[in-house]
Amino acid sequence: MQVLFHVDDSERWEITLNNVEAMLRCGQETSRVFTIEVVVNGAAVRELQLAQAKRVGTYDRLAALGAAVRVCACKNALANLAISPESLLPGVAVVPAGVVEIAERQSEGYAYIKP
Amino acid sequence: MQVLFHVDDSERWEITLNNVEAMLRCGQETSRVFTIEVVVNGAAVRELQLAQAKRVGTYDRLAALGAAVRVCACKNALANLAISPESLLPGVAVVPAGVVEIAERQSEGYAYIKP
Amino acid sequence: MQVLFHVDDSERWEITLNNVEAMLRCGQETSRVFTIEVVVNGAAVRELQLAQAKRVGTYDRLAALGAAVRVCACKNALANLAISPESLLPGVAVVPAGVVEIAERQSEGYAYIKP
Repeated sequence: MQVLFHVDDSERWEITLNNVEAMLRCGQETSRVFTIEVVVNGAAVRELQLAQAKRVGTYDRLAALGAAVRVCACKNALANLAISPESLLPGVAVVPAGVVEIAERQSEGYAYIKP
Repeated sequence: MQVLFHVDDSERWEITLNNVEAMLRCGQETSRVFTIEVVVNGAAVRELQLAQAKRVGTYDRLAALGAAVRVCACKNALANLAISPESLLPGVAVVPAGVVEIAERQSEGYAYIKP
Repeated sequence: MQVLFHVDDSERWEITLNNVEAMLRCGQETSRVFTIEVVVNGAAVRELQLAQAKRVGTYDRLAALGAAVRVCACKNALANLAISPESLLPGVAVVPAGVVEIAERQSEGYAYIKP
């Protein structure tokens, strides 16, 4: 099962992480493999900055997900907010356009969830 | 046509119910069958409690939908908010994880709508 | 690539238009064709009225998209808000039910994005 979570609002990080963690727990309990990608655009890229992520608590939770979850930040959103890709959490991938990533993944069979 | 509505925010119940009712009306007018499921997680499970549903008006509207619409509450969300499954409206199903239900339904061909 | 954007909240017009414009730019840069439809229901149909669109700035941005993007307004939403179809921006299509349009497009292979 392949699943894409879309976050574009800083206030939705909390519920998104709850959702991703619940899905991983379910995978462990039922021995199913979930391939999970989180695509971040809009203002929500702010919480992917190392300093901001430590302040608001996304840092520890994203770090705990580790390699089980791919996290992608939209390059346009970073540029709009003058955020340097170098300031992001280690392991976060930068994609040219978040919405194109989302469309492509759905065409590959990913389910789409917008918490 | 199979359609899944996702509700995770108490403030989105109103528009979600408007959407579901509009879809059922359209089905009646055009003699098409819509298989509709509403997956509820996050704070929106609160409005599935019998007492709360009567207070805010979801009770009458969900009851009127009857068997035409399957309503599922996420077990994790219920646990997080200390809501007992027994306190829910009659007919509401409890699923182990709302996000897994959403992903599975999409893999079965359901369209996803997040009002 | 076929993509449907869903807008049902007036406050999400800004980010939706950012997203659509980013997708079109990406298409130009990579010589890919994106077939884009924007389905508007709920309170967000207000910003499709000519006068309101000029006031809030959706007018210029939607006009600039031109024929590259199909914009559909939900007839139910217009009726609920007593908005006449004649008051809408030129080029906006009216569909009987926004949610049915969304479900049908997904069944045709459109990706769904809710900004």
